[in-house]
Amino acid sequence: MSSDRAVVDHPTSWPAREVTPLDDATLRRVDAWWRAANYLAVGQIYLLDNPLLAEPLHRDHVKPRLLGHWGTTPGLTFLYAHLNRAIAERAQSTLYVTGPGHGGPGLVAAAYLDGTYSEVYTGITQDSEGMRKLFRQFSFPGGIPSHVAPETPGSIHEGGELGYALSHAYGAAFDNPDLLVAAVVGDGEAETGPLATSWHSNKFVDPLSDGVVLPILHLNGYKIANPTVLARIPEDELLDLMRGYGHTPYVVSGGFDDEDADVVHRRMAEVLDEVLNQIAEIKQAAREGRLTERPKWPMIILRTPKGWTCPPVIDGKQVEDSWRSHQVPLASARDTDEHLQVLEGWLRSYRPEELFDATGRLDDDIASLAPIGDLRMSATPHANGGLLLRDLQLPDFRDHAVDVPTPGATMAEATKVLGEWLAGVVERNPDNFRIVGPDETASNRLQAVFGVTDKVWNAELRPGDDNLARAGRVLEMLSEHQCQGWLEGYLLTGRHGLFSCYEAFIHIVDSMFNQHAKWLKVTREIPWRRPIASLNYLLTSHVWRQDHNGFSHQDPGFIDHVVNKKAEIVRVYLPPDANTLLVTYDHCLRSRDLVNVVVAGKQPAPTFLTMDQAVAHCARGLGIWEWAGTEERGEDPDVVLACAGDVPTLEVLAAADLLRRHLPDLNVRVVNVVDLMRLQDEREHPHGLSDREFDTIFTPDKPILFAYHGYPWLVHRLTYRRTGHANLHVRGYKEEGTTTTPFDMVMLNDLDRFRLVMDVIDRVPHLGTRAAELRQEMVDARLRAREWTREHGEDIPEVRDWVWPDVGETGTEVGGPQGGRVSGASATGGDNE
Amino acid sequence: MSSDRAVVDHPTSWPAREVTPLDDATLRRVDAWWRAANYLAVGQIYLLDNPLLAEPLHRDHVKPRLLGHWGTTPGLTFLYAHLNRAIAERAQSTLYVTGPGHGGPGLVAAAYLDGTYSEVYTGITQDSEGMRKLFRQFSFPGGIPSHVAPETPGSIHEGGELGYALSHAYGAAFDNPDLLVAAVVGDGEAETGPLATSWHSNKFVDPLSDGVVLPILHLNGYKIANPTVLARIPEDELLDLMRGYGHTPYVVSGGFDDEDADVVHRRMAEVLDEVLNQIAEIKQAAREGRLTERPKWPMIILRTPKGWTCPPVIDGKQVEDSWRSHQVPLASARDTDEHLQVLEGWLRSYRPEELFDATGRLDDDIASLAPIGDLRMSATPHANGGLLLRDLQLPDFRDHAVDVPTPGATMAEATKVLGEWLAGVVERNPDNFRIVGPDETASNRLQAVFGVTDKVWNAELRPGDDNLARAGRVLEMLSEHQCQGWLEGYLLTGRHGLFSCYEAFIHIVDSMFNQHAKWLKVTREIPWRRPIASLNYLLTSHVWRQDHNGFSHQDPGFIDHVVNKKAEIVRVYLPPDANTLLVTYDHCLRSRDLVNVVVAGKQPAPTFLTMDQAVAHCARGLGIWEWAGTEERGEDPDVVLACAGDVPTLEVLAAADLLRRHLPDLNVRVVNVVDLMRLQDEREHPHGLSDREFDTIFTPDKPILFAYHGYPWLVHRLTYRRTGHANLHVRGYKEEGTTTTPFDMVMLNDLDRFRLVMDVIDRVPHLGTRAAELRQEMVDARLRAREWTREHGEDIPEVRDWVWPDVGETGTEVGGPQGGRVSGASATGGDNE
Ligand SMILES: Cc1ncc(C[n+]2csc(CCOP(=O)(O)OP(=O)(O)O)c2C)c(N)n1
Ligand SMILES: Cc1ncc(C[n+]2csc(CCOP(=O)(O)OP(=O)(O)O)c2C)c(N)n1
Ligand SMILES: [Mg+2]
Ligand SMILES: [Mg+2]
Repeated sequence: MSSDRAVVDHPTSWPAREVTPLDDATLRRVDAWWRAANYLAVGQIYLLDNPLLAEPLHRDHVKPRLLGHWGTTPGLTFLYAHLNRAIAERAQSTLYVTGPGHGGPGLVAAAYLDGTYSEVYTGITQDSEGMRKLFRQFSFPGGIPSHVAPETPGSIHEGGELGYALSHAYGAAFDNPDLLVAAVVGDGEAETGPLATSWHSNKFVDPLSDGVVLPILHLNGYKIANPTVLARIPEDELLDLMRGYGHTPYVVSGGFDDEDADVVHRRMAEVLDEVLNQIAEIKQAAREGRLTERPKWPMIILRTPKGWTCPPVIDGKQVEDSWRSHQVPLASARDTDEHLQVLEGWLRSYRPEELFDATGRLDDDIASLAPIGDLRMSATPHANGGLLLRDLQLPDFRDHAVDVPTPGATMAEATKVLGEWLAGVVERNPDNFRIVGPDETASNRLQAVFGVTDKVWNAELRPGDDNLARAGRVLEMLSEHQCQGWLEGYLLTGRHGLFSCYEAFIHIVDSMFNQHAKWLKVTREIPWRRPIASLNYLLTSHVWRQDHNGFSHQDPGFIDHVVNKKAEIVRVYLPPDANTLLVTYDHCLRSRDLVNVVVAGKQPAPTFLTMDQAVAHCARGLGIWEWAGTEERGEDPDVVLACAGDVPTLEVLAAADLLRRHLPDLNVRVVNVVDLMRLQDEREHPHGLSDREFDTIFTPDKPILFAYHGYPWLVHRLTYRRTGHANLHVRGYKEEGTTTTPFDMVMLNDLDRFRLVMDVIDRVPHLGTRAAELRQEMVDARLRAREWTREHGEDIPEVRDWVWPDVGETGTEVGGPQGGRVSGASATGGDNE
Repeated sequence: MSSDRAVVDHPTSWPAREVTPLDDATLRRVDAWWRAANYLAVGQIYLLDNPLLAEPLHRDHVKPRLLGHWGTTPGLTFLYAHLNRAIAERAQSTLYVTGPGHGGPGLVAAAYLDGTYSEVYTGITQDSEGMRKLFRQFSFPGGIPSHVAPETPGSIHEGGELGYALSHAYGAAFDNPDLLVAAVVGDGEAETGPLATSWHSNKFVDPLSDGVVLPILHLNGYKIANPTVLARIPEDELLDLMRGYGHTPYVVSGGFDDEDADVVHRRMAEVLDEVLNQIAEIKQAAREGRLTERPKWPMIILRTPKGWTCPPVIDGKQVEDSWRSHQVPLASARDTDEHLQVLEGWLRSYRPEELFDATGRLDDDIASLAPIGDLRMSATPHANGGLLLRDLQLPDFRDHAVDVPTPGATMAEATKVLGEWLAGVVERNPDNFRIVGPDETASNRLQAVFGVTDKVWNAELRPGDDNLARAGRVLEMLSEHQCQGWLEGYLLTGRHGLFSCYEAFIHIVDSMFNQHAKWLKVTREIPWRRPIASLNYLLTSHVWRQDHNGFSHQDPGFIDHVVNKKAEIVRVYLPPDANTLLVTYDHCLRSRDLVNVVVAGKQPAPTFLTMDQAVAHCARGLGIWEWAGTEERGEDPDVVLACAGDVPTLEVLAAADLLRRHLPDLNVRVVNVVDLMRLQDEREHPHGLSDREFDTIFTPDKPILFAYHGYPWLVHRLTYRRTGHANLHVRGYKEEGTTTTPFDMVMLNDLDRFRLVMDVIDRVPHLGTRAAELRQEMVDARLRAREWTREHGEDIPEVRDWVWPDVGETGTEVGGPQGGRVSGASATGGDNE
């Protein structure tokens, strides 16, 4: 895993093996490895010093603050030990996903026993001094976090926010036909919504071209302070549930009532071999074309006591096999001699002297349990996806340029044009690019991709099904959580993709975005983590054009949410037309370690910039549209009309047109912003404009009217330090809306052309009285426009048919429905067509 | 439902009835009612005029923009018709929850047929003119939305964002022992995470004291553009899944291949009677104490063609029983005569002349299918919860006051103190107050409530289980979605509650909050909707004290998310100590139609205000803490130190202490903000301070240093219009963190006392050179504090043991662990204890 070693993937042929009971030597090895991992985990939670218990435990050896989670750990290490045995025997490339990521000590211990930890953190050596540091650093200031964090080798999954273990696991498995992903799901975690639906991922995996996810439900019975639902329903119900999810469940249960661990080891090993053989058989059948229907993939239910092997009862209270073992079972370890002895007894129960020699080195025989090299789960390159990352082959977006003889002359559906280019991306990258979406890829107008690929569907297929197949580049399930989780897993293992979503409902994954952004932020500070492809959003069916729906579908706030994260990580783009969208997306798909949020329209709309102009405009991130303004070179403008987003841009241009016709002497500057982060201070964001540049473009002292796609406060938040901020007036979405016409929507939120003209009149000094008649006309125009909608149910022709005046009669249309004049119905119609 | 009618709840005894095949007259009535509803639904989507088809359909009768969703509608009306028959016979109080809320036309039609629509919207009469208006207004500017929105009588569930049908349904059923909630779940909706876990709600419902949810999975096979997973797995898998979820599934399938609807009606009626009888039997058993285990509640799977009864094929493409019927099947209705005829044929296929007389009145016999009065599902008072709302009986929070001899003298865990008061709330309101939380109620220190109630648990109970019982006031499941959905359903049906959650993970329900806030905003404009209790959040285990976890658990951004919604709806409180938390929560539980976000600490922290002071402080929403500052009355302060949040308040006070000791001549004003919305402009928010008042408190021209709990930009966003904004400098969380000590966390984010002192020195004019030594000391103090943590793993005593100087030796402690000195371990310990 260290970055200078050659990376070799280990394709396997998914061999089947005879299932024989564990021989005694292997059994001893498995158990010893497990004890070693548990010992190291307990050591991390409690010990500052005396790592090998070479001397009697003293109060000062114990950390003053005891932080971390024990309860889940012994189950995680148990599974790791058994997987080590099985995958080493089969040389099976395996990624381990830890749902209950709070079990950090267990996974750190495993990586340490694997040797990986000392390879990437050379100071943490495999001797007693290294072990001392390993213990000390855990949950310690300046040390490592308590979770299976980016710092943990072998992890793509922090697990702090529960619920995404399976969708991450499937994301990792897609297009990795030789990879096994062992995904542990906490039984508490299984109660979360995202996890509950993610079992159905098995309908979206292709047995031939994808890897295999082995879900392991860790039924330790408890969560923080309660039993879990799945542990407290009759076993036949639980088995029905798993069968209902399309799995063949295998139960391993043990460790209760002082049952000898060896018995449980034997049971586990047998089931694991059986399950791996069953997987091998499915894989074989797939390769031989013998699979006629979706396999009922095996899964394992592991029922063991929470906190297994810790002191069963402390201070008279049940701890092992209880929620009380969740965090630090013996929080009072330092407080009394008695408690200290309980801790020492617990540690010694793992018989460290049998596991490590006096120098702290793991016994060779025990170490031999694990696979070697990149086959170690802690060292798999799949968990450091950047190592495997290949650049995308991108078609030239210029080939998809919308022809723009004069600004605004050509109507195009931006996302539809993008879709045509994306079809080229799909074609050129048949195994490392995926598009995910919650049943909206076509609704979002990316249907051109279905010319070259299909939607994956491993549930029942019927004659007449459109664009569904056992394999394909598009993943659609009505779960934004699944889309996000799958894509994250796919990116984290070194591939590329994008998530297209209704703008409003992307809030469903706010918290998942948080976790991914945090992951990226931390990985940037970890030298051995290699950059991965960015997480790209395409948000469309946006707030201004939710014609079929209404208020519940109007929310542009994801941008606000995103900009709270570290500036180095987030980018927000609002391309005003089809050509700028193409340029933007080309840029996004080339970027690394970012989250790119792109908001774009799907309805027919004017294209303003030629491709050359679009390239320049996007490179700048914002720019003055001289052709749209009326300023005289060399003179100061009287007012700046700024816009960001397709609909605001249209309204600003229409306002500029009104101003040029009615107030020809007014010097109007029109500025369009594509890259929202340009507004921010250069000290705050790497894309930020210098104050000097900002002042030049927006003026330090003239009224700035900003028509913004989303909530207006965001623009203030980004610009409050700018010289001219006191002159900045922002119009945007102010949470007014319903099912109505597009222009009624902008009027409801005071973002319409007429209102903007009024704003100019109200704000440009000395204009007021001179332009009083025009202002009154604008008031009347709003009324007239509103009344028209009430009467006719569509927008007034003077608005609907408005085109940028230079267009004249040369207007053409590209990508619009059926060519020709855009009828009201079809322009807003057919999300499902 | 109209507000001046007396509200009567209809308790039933859940009668069982003999299951007999539908007699022919009833069958005809059911079918006619269904056809009438479908006719009205199609009319709403397409027609501007000619509602009864009195004349041949003309192009101008058709809306220019065709908006809405047909596909789901016939299934929704089918179920409504059958429920009408069954609940009328049993006089069963019933609430209908429409998962696929895009089926608005169906539910509006039902309410119109019920007569409810004309009662609440008196202009929409039950005659042809009323019908014309009904059709016209749908998805029309100035009309009604396309969804089952707040405007729709009988609805508590907009259904725009899919996934919450069942959690809302269960929320409505809790503590309504006589209520049946029929909850339709779309098969696409069933793919969402929240819906997938919400089936398990049946483990949290008490057969005796709660109502009954009857889930109906609407398996119409398709979503927007794809088949659905549940429709494309073998039926035995689907049945296993439902059994696994703990249900007894009943399948009704029909309407395919031109099957006569009558056959399907008979099947449906029989199953419905059987299911209601089974429910009656369970209820009976519960009342008689015969239930020994959780009943396997029945649920229905209704498999019918999507778009059932629309033209099967249009322009050569399959529409009925296909995703193509999802939205507007005949988007081109106006375009050609042929298409117009298809539409007319479709409308006439419902034989409107048999359903309505020439004046447009529904045939009496058909109308008699529905129940009457409040038993009409469209008129149930449970769907207009404000009608049923009773004020909470609140204990006097003063009885729980923490005694504060001098400011900061008493340590208390704020949420623990709140918990003691909440126990009193629980006691006094045994059937209309609930606390929900994702397995964190005790971790969030509200454990006192378990002295008076239990957590509901209708899964298996075992000896040794703590505070679990078949009935109780606390609902805990590891799903923030479930918590939010349950509570929403509970509030919308006229009850009270609060949701306690880790601050970071409340983002999981960002989008659900959006929908609820939007619902509240709209209901405020609907005269017949009565105010309901506010949605109260208690966010704790907050960003500054996630000692056991780390970066993934640190996110104070929910506040930012919330303030994007309408100002009338949202309130944000950051009480600095236990007493102010008590006052705040008393206020929140009395409020109506709001979302109250309260962020508070759970760790031992000083209490600054006596209860009298706390009451005054909270009434003002913010205030100068004269005792903490050093300003001379009558003089201008040199600097304002402002704070919001418990940890920032502590740091500001410690900084004020340093300043008073080292720069005794500096006039320091200390301001604490509890009600964050006070910062906003009075034109923007009802709680906003006037500019005048703001200037008085914060000064128009002195440096203001604001130590804020969350992302610092929010304070700028709220105050950018204020006179002194240019002098405002905000410190807050800037996305730096890991598992470390509390003081290291504030240092990482430059919010610590030493940094604040440096900020003062850097910002107060002329102080710089005079205070250079102090500044240097502060730099050193930070280094010293950091090094101490690296060495000892806990915070340096000078910081950890700092108390407000007036406290001297009189410091006492209330509610802290075990009384006495707070040890590092226990102060941060035991989330699960
Ligand atoms: C979404 C989410 N909500 C709440 C939490 C707080 N939390 C941390 S661990 C835990 C219990 C987890 O239980 P389980 O999945 O059974 O894990 P295990 O028993 O293996 O520790 C909870 C609720 C969380 N991490 N994520
Ligand atoms: C969370 C969410 N994601 C996406 C959508 C967009 N959407 C609207 S309707 C629909 C399909 C719903 O299918 P189903 O639940 O089967 O309803 P029905 O077939 O009855 O229309 C989708 C994906 C949504 N409303 N909510
Ligand atoms: Mg568990
Ligand atoms: Mg459906």
